[in-house]
Amino acid sequence: MNVSRISRYSAKHRILKATRQLSASSKSIPVSKKFPTHVIFGANTDVGKTVVSTSLVKSNVDNNQPVHYIKPLQCGGSDEGFVLKHMTKSVPNDSGAHTLFNWNTPASPHLASRIENQPTSDEMVLDTLQQKIRSIAQNAESVSCTNIWIETAGGVLSPSSSSPLNSQPKHASNQQRWGWSTQGDLYKQLQLPVVLVGDGRLGGISATLSAMESLIVRGYDIHALVLIDEAEGEHGSNLPALKEYAERSLSLRSGSGRPLLKHEDSIISLPPLPPLEVPLDEWFASAQVKEQSERLNGYLNEMWNDHVDTLYNLRSEGKESLWWPFTQHQGHDDKKVNATVIDGATGDYFSILNDTDNDNDTTGMERSGTFDACASWWTQGMGHGETSLSLSAAAAAGKFGHVIFPDVVHEPAKALADRLLHSKSGPGRDWASRVFFTDDGSTAMEVAIKMGMKKYVYDRAARGDGDVPLDKKLTVVAQNDCYHGDTLGVMDVAEPSVFNEGQHPWYEPKGLFLSYPTIRYANGKIGVAPPSSSGCPASAKEFDSIELILDVGQRLSSDLYTHYYEQIDKEWSNYESTENKIIASVVIEPVLLGAGGMKFIDPLWQRALIDLARSKHVPIIFDEVAAGLYRVGVASCREIIGANPDIAAYAKLLTGGLIPMSVTLASEDVFKTFLGDTKAEALLHGHSYTAHPVGCVSSIHALDTYAELFESNEIDYKTAFFNQEEVSALSQLDIVQEAMSLGTVVAVTIEPDESGSGYAAAGRSIPVVKYLLDNGVYARPLGNVVYIMVSPLTKPDECSRLCGILKDALLTVS
Amino acid sequence: MNVSRISRYSAKHRILKATRQLSASSKSIPVSKKFPTHVIFGANTDVGKTVVSTSLVKSNVDNNQPVHYIKPLQCGGSDEGFVLKHMTKSVPNDSGAHTLFNWNTPASPHLASRIENQPTSDEMVLDTLQQKIRSIAQNAESVSCTNIWIETAGGVLSPSSSSPLNSQPKHASNQQRWGWSTQGDLYKQLQLPVVLVGDGRLGGISATLSAMESLIVRGYDIHALVLIDEAEGEHGSNLPALKEYAERSLSLRSGSGRPLLKHEDSIISLPPLPPLEVPLDEWFASAQVKEQSERLNGYLNEMWNDHVDTLYNLRSEGKESLWWPFTQHQGHDDKKVNATVIDGATGDYFSILNDTDNDNDTTGMERSGTFDACASWWTQGMGHGETSLSLSAAAAAGKFGHVIFPDVVHEPAKALADRLLHSKSGPGRDWASRVFFTDDGSTAMEVAIKMGMKKYVYDRAARGDGDVPLDKKLTVVAQNDCYHGDTLGVMDVAEPSVFNEGQHPWYEPKGLFLSYPTIRYANGKIGVAPPSSSGCPASAKEFDSIELILDVGQRLSSDLYTHYYEQIDKEWSNYESTENKIIASVVIEPVLLGAGGMKFIDPLWQRALIDLARSKHVPIIFDEVAAGLYRVGVASCREIIGANPDIAAYAKLLTGGLIPMSVTLASEDVFKTFLGDTKAEALLHGHSYTAHPVGCVSSIHALDTYAELFESNEIDYKTAFFNQEEVSALSQLDIVQEAMSLGTVVAVTIEPDESGSGYAAAGRSIPVVKYLLDNGVYARPLGNVVYIMVSPLTKPDECSRLCGILKDALLTVS
Repeated sequence: MNVSRISRYSAKHRILKATRQLSASSKSIPVSKKFPTHVIFGANTDVGKTVVSTSLVKSNVDNNQPVHYIKPLQCGGSDEGFVLKHMTKSVPNDSGAHTLFNWNTPASPHLASRIENQPTSDEMVLDTLQQKIRSIAQNAESVSCTNIWIETAGGVLSPSSSSPLNSQPKHASNQQRWGWSTQGDLYKQLQLPVVLVGDGRLGGISATLSAMESLIVRGYDIHALVLIDEAEGEHGSNLPALKEYAERSLSLRSGSGRPLLKHEDSIISLPPLPPLEVPLDEWFASAQVKEQSERLNGYLNEMWNDHVDTLYNLRSEGKESLWWPFTQHQGHDDKKVNATVIDGATGDYFSILNDTDNDNDTTGMERSGTFDACASWWTQGMGHGETSLSLSAAAAAGKFGHVIFPDVVHEPAKALADRLLHSKSGPGRDWASRVFFTDDGSTAMEVAIKMGMKKYVYDRAARGDGDVPLDKKLTVVAQNDCYHGDTLGVMDVAEPSVFNEGQHPWYEPKGLFLSYPTIRYANGKIGVAPPSSSGCPASAKEFDSIELILDVGQRLSSDLYTHYYEQIDKEWSNYESTENKIIASVVIEPVLLGAGGMKFIDPLWQRALIDLARSKHVPIIFDEVAAGLYRVGVASCREIIGANPDIAAYAKLLTGGLIPMSVTLASEDVFKTFLGDTKAEALLHGHSYTAHPVGCVSSIHALDTYAELFESNEIDYKTAFFNQEEVSALSQLDIVQEAMSLGTVVAVTIEPDESGSGYAAAGRSIPVVKYLLDNGVYARPLGNVVYIMVSPLTKPDECSRLCGILKDALLTVS
Repeated sequence: MNVSRISRYSAKHRILKATRQLSASSKSIPVSKKFPTHVIFGANTDVGKTVVSTSLVKSNVDNNQPVHYIKPLQCGGSDEGFVLKHMTKSVPNDSGAHTLFNWNTPASPHLASRIENQPTSDEMVLDTLQQKIRSIAQNAESVSCTNIWIETAGGVLSPSSSSPLNSQPKHASNQQRWGWSTQGDLYKQLQLPVVLVGDGRLGGISATLSAMESLIVRGYDIHALVLIDEAEGEHGSNLPALKEYAERSLSLRSGSGRPLLKHEDSIISLPPLPPLEVPLDEWFASAQVKEQSERLNGYLNEMWNDHVDTLYNLRSEGKESLWWPFTQHQGHDDKKVNATVIDGATGDYFSILNDTDNDNDTTGMERSGTFDACASWWTQGMGHGETSLSLSAAAAAGKFGHVIFPDVVHEPAKALADRLLHSKSGPGRDWASRVFFTDDGSTAMEVAIKMGMKKYVYDRAARGDGDVPLDKKLTVVAQNDCYHGDTLGVMDVAEPSVFNEGQHPWYEPKGLFLSYPTIRYANGKIGVAPPSSSGCPASAKEFDSIELILDVGQRLSSDLYTHYYEQIDKEWSNYESTENKIIASVVIEPVLLGAGGMKFIDPLWQRALIDLARSKHVPIIFDEVAAGLYRVGVASCREIIGANPDIAAYAKLLTGGLIPMSVTLASEDVFKTFLGDTKAEALLHGHSYTAHPVGCVSSIHALDTYAELFESNEIDYKTAFFNQEEVSALSQLDIVQEAMSLGTVVAVTIEPDESGSGYAAAGRSIPVVKYLLDNGVYARPLGNVVYIMVSPLTKPDECSRLCGILKDALLTVS
C-alpha cells in the first residue's frame, strides 16, 4: 500500500504556507461516481471510528477495489498503522493510506499543536486534505471506482488543531490567540456525506443522538450510523432504540432537506469487540463483521451514487420548475446555460458544482469555493452556514416556533427592539421609540410610507393648516434611480422606466424624483459629481480625502450646502404648484443608493433635503434596507448625514443573512399619530409571521456580533474594509469611469460603450463579471456597474485580495 | 427530610389517570424568586448528575435553606437515597426528596417501562411533576427562598418512559406502539433553566458540546455547566477548552436570545472523585467541593432572580417599545392591560405567564399552558417548538445560510418545488409547472396579480382581440369581505371599508366585489345561505349532509349552478359596461374566506365563477394563503371545487408554522407570458431572501409530514377533526347564528346585538373569548365570529374537548 505521510513542518513554515494558500483563487474536489468520499465521525472518543474505518477499507481490499484511507489529524499512535495492520489481502493498485498532520502528544489536536508549538490552521488542514483528494483522483489509473474514507479525530465536536491563523470569531482561542474549531465545523465546507460511528455503550443512545444533532445543525448529510455493540449482557444493544427514533414520522434531515437514516441498512451494529488485550484479527475475520461491513460499504456506495445523481440533475431539472426573480428565462433552454448549482456555503464562500470535461465521467462534477461578492443580495452578515447562527435560530425555533404577536410580548421581540432602539450603536437610539415588524424591505417600506403619510396629515391638522384639499393628491419626494421594493405600493415610489411600466397596469409613479450629486473617485481623485443640470459651484467639488467629503458637519457652512438647499426648494415648490400635489413624506436611501446603480450620494445634499423637509413639517423616511446595519460601516447613515429621520426601515443584514425579517423604526410622535378610540385608527398591517422569534433571535445574535466588532475600537469602518488607495487606483484605469468604496462595498462604473449605460447596459460589465467568476469571485453586474461586497466579518487582507482580482478583471477586459 | 414516593400504579390505572388529566384545562407552576427551580441534565450517563445534585442540595441544607430534590424517573437504585445519605446536617423544614416514578429494572426508562409493563406517558410524568412543584410551593411555610432541583435520567437525549399514550409523531415507538421521547423533549415545555453536568472524561469536550447543542435546539436556557474532572494525570481537565469555546465572540444563545455561559461562574469543575469503592463523604466534605458548590448554588440563584426579573418586566417594558400590528395601542397605558406574555410554546400550547395575586411576592408569576386556538394567525402546522422542525431549519442554516437565487439552483428550492408541483397531494399537481418564491401571503398575491394581469393582456393580443383600449382600466373580480394582504397593491383588491380607507391616501379599490352564498349549519341543519339580494332557488338550499353539499361534481347539474352562473355573468357584464373597466383576473379565496369573517363560501358558486371566467379567457387566481395546505383538510380547495386555477398562492402552513416564506404557483402558460428578448419583459420581483434554504427545508419537512398524515389512509380530513354532530349542536344554541367546520377550523357566528355585526362588532364575542382564555384556550374574535383552529397534527379527541369548552363558553355568555 502506498503510504504517504506529511511530516511536521516548522511553525514558521506552516504559517507562511497558509498565508500563500489563502490567496489561492480556487480549490476543487471531485464529486463523481468514480470517487465515493465519506467522512467518518465518531459520536465520542473511543467508540470505534478506526475499527469501522478499517472494516470499510478492508471490505474494499477484500473485493479488489482501490481504496484510500485518510487521517487528517493524528495525535499519538497511528490509526493509519492500525488500518494497514489489519489488511489480510494484498492491497489493489491505486490505493493508499495517508496521515496528513501528526503530533506525538497523545492529546486533543488543539492541545498537541500548542504543546509542540506546531500551529496548524483550518485552512492548512483543508487545503492539504483537498489537495490529497485531488491528487488521488488525478492519479487514479484504475477504471473501477475508488472509495475515499476520511477519519476525523475524537468526537464530532472534539477540538481540531490550533493556530494563530485560526482567528475568526468562530474560533475558540487561548490567551496566546491560538484558535481552534470543532471537528464538525472544520470539515463542514467540504459538503461530504458522513458515516457516524455511534456509541454502543451504556448511555450511548443520548451520546449518539446528540452527536447526530451536532452534525445536522452543521448541515451534514448522514448516510449511515454504525454502532459497535458493547459486550453482551451489560444493558443490551442501543440499536433498537436508535432505529425506533429514526423511524418516527418526523424525519431527521440533511441541510438539503433529504430525510436521514430511513433505510434499514442505514443503521447497523457490529458485534462487540473482544477484550482490549485480544488482537482484532479474528473479529475482523468473523463472518458477521465481514458481511455487515460489505453490506455497509455497498449501501454507502449506492447512497453516494444517488447523491451524485441528485446533484447532477439539479441544474437541468431545477430550471424546469423554478421561476427565478429578475431573470429572463428565455435562452435558458440550452441544457446548461447560466444556472449555477450551489450546494452549500461556508463563510463568504459558495460551494459551487461545475461539470467536469471528462467524457468518461458523464455525471462527474467538481466542487469549488467561490467568493459570494454580491453578499447574496446584500444579506450576508455572519457568513454563510455559521454554526452559532444556525444554533441561535434553532434555539428560538425550539422554544417558540412562531407565536401570534398582536397584544403579545415575547422576550426575543422585546430584546431585539431594545438593541435597535437603545443600544450604544442602535440605529434608532435617541430618536426612535417603537419597532414595527414585517417580513422584508418592501413591506417595511410600505409600512414606513403608511406611517409617513398619516403623520403628515395628522400634523397638518394639528398645527392648524387644515385638511388636505380633496383635489390634491399626496405624494412623496424621492430620488432618481431610487428603489424601495417590488410590491406595488413602493413600486409607485420610483420614476417610470422600462422596469416598472411594463410590470403592472396599476403602476403609477407618485413622487417628485430629484436628481442628486454623487461622491466618487474619478481619475484617482475623490470629489463630488453633481447632476449635469445643477450649476453646482465648481470650487466645492474637490476634496483631499474621503474623510473630508464625509464630514457633513464641517461642510454645512459651505456654499454647496446653500446651493443644494435652494435647488431642492425650487424643485419642490415648483412641483407642488404645477402638479396639484402635496408632498407628504421624504423618502431617501441615505448615502448609498443600491439597486438603482450603486450610487454614493453626497450626504451633504441629503442633509439639505432633510433640513428643508423639516422646515416644511414633512416627515422623513430613511430606507436603510440595503445600506443600513454596517453595510457601509455605520449602523445608520444618520451618523454620516448628521440628522435623524422620523421613520427608518431595516432588513437584509438584520438576521445576519439567514431568513427574512424587517423592522420599521418610528419616533414616538409617529406612533402617537395612530392612537385613537377605534381599531380602525390603528396601523392595520400585520403579516402572519410578524416578529417571528426565529428571526428575532437570529437578529439579536447578528446585531450583538456586529456591535462587538464595530463598537470595540477606534477604527473607522467606513474606510477600513477596502483600502482607499486601491480604490482610487481602480478609478484610474482606462475602462473605469469612477470608483467608490464605503464599508463593505467597492463599486466601479465602467465607461459605457455603444450598448449605453445604466441598468440595462451590461455590454462591458458582463466580461468583467465572467473573469471574476473564473477567478473564484461571484459578482452580479448592475448594468455598467460592477461591485464587490463582503460581510462585516471579512478581514481587510481578503478585501485587498478581492480588489486585486477586480483590478485584474478590469485590465483584462479593457 | 420529608420523603414522598409515588409507588407504581397498575398499567390500567395509569392510562385512565392520564386520559382524565389530558382534559385538565390548565396546569401551572410558579415562576417566582421564592422558588428557584432548575433542571439538572447530564451530557451523558454516569457523568455525575446525582453527585452534582447532591452537592447543590447539600449547600442549601448546610445553610439552613429549605430545598427540594425531585427525581421524576428512576430505574433501579435510588438517587433520592444517595442524596439523602450524604446530608450531614439536619434538614430544614419545608424540605423534601421525591422520586415520582420508579422501576426495578436497571435500564433506560423506555425499556424498564416496557419490561415491567408499566406504561408511563409524557403527560403523566409532566402532570405529576408539575403537581409536585405546585404542592411544594403551596405548602411552603418558610419565608426563605426554597430551591427545587429536578434531576433527569441518563443523558440529555436518553429515552424517557414508554406508553401507548405517547403516540404523537415525535415519539419513537416499538411495534407495540409504546412510544417514548427524549429527556430533552420531555421537559422542554416546563421552560425551566438548566444545569448541565458535562463530561469530564477523555472525549468529554465533544460529548459536552453536543449535549449543550441538543439543549440549545430545544430552546433551553443553560444557566451553568459543571464538570467533575477525571482523576488527575489522565489527559487534563476539559474545563479550559470548554471555557475557550464559550468565550468566543459568537455566543451560544437560549431560545429567548440570551447569551449562555458567559459569566466566569457559569462553567466550573469539581475535583476528581475517589475510586468507586471509596465512599464520597470525604469528597463532599472537602473545602474545595463545599466552596465550589456554594458558589455554584449562589450563582444559580442570582441567575434565577435575573430570569424572573426579565420575564416579569417583559409585559410593561415590551409595550413601551413594540408596535403591535392590528392593535389600537390606546388604552394599553394601564400597566397590565391586555399584553399577554408568551414565554415559549410546545405543540399546540403557549406557555403563558400571569402575575400571581400574592402581595408578598411582587414579581411572582404563574406559568401555564394555553391552547393556541388561533393557530398563531393560521400558521401552525407542526406544533410549536417541534424539535424535528427546529433541526431541519438549523440543518439548512448550517449548510447554506441563505444564497442568492436568480440563475441559481439549490437542492432545497428544487426539492420543495417538486413537492408542490409533482407529489401525490401537491397543490400544483397536474396544472402548475413553476414555483415563484416570495416572503408572505401579501407578496405572493402581489406576484399572482402581476402574473394574472400580464397573462390577460398577452392572451388578449394573442387571440386577436387587440390591445387594451387606453381609456379602459384593468381590474379584477373578487369577493366581498375578501382580504389578500396588507401591502398597497393587494389592499386595492378589497372593497372600501373603515379598515382600508383610513389606512392610506393611495388606497383605491380596483375590482368588482361580488356577494356570495355561504354554507353553514343553522339550527342544526347544513345548508346554503345565499346573499340577501340573490333570489336563489329555495329548493337547492337544504342538504342532508356536509358530504352532499361539498359534492360539487354532483351539484353541477342543479338549478343552483345555473342560477349562480347567470347571476355572476350579469354582474360582470354590467360592471364592465358601466364602469369603463376590463376584468383582467379573477381573484378568490377558495371555500374559506378567512380574515374577512370566516365565511365558508359555497364551492358551487366559486365553480360557476371559474367556469364563467374560463369562457371569457380571464385568468383565475386562487389565494390559498390561509386555507390551503390542509387547513380545511385538503392540500388545495381545487379538490372541493373540482377546477384548477392558473395561479395560486400559498404561505402560512407552508413552513410548518416557523418562519415566513410563500410561493406562487403558475401554469406553464402563465410562465411563458413572461418570456421575451429582454430582461424588462421578465417578472421583476425578487425579495432578498427569495427561496431561502431555511424556509425551503422547513417547508419540505412540513409538507412531508402533512402528506404522510393526509395521504396515508381513507379518512376524509375535511370532516375528521371536529365532530360534525358537535358542530351542528353548536348551531342550535340561542346565541349562535350559524356554525361551520371544515378541516382544522370550527367557527361560530354570534347573533349580533346592538353593537352590530362584522369585524368591528365584538360586543358578545369578547366575553366568549375571555371565557375561553380563562379555560386555557387562546382564541381571537373576528368581529362577531369566534373560531378555534387546531394544527393538522391535533387529534380528534382534543378537537372534541375544545368544542366542548366553546360550547360551555357560548352557554355561559348567553
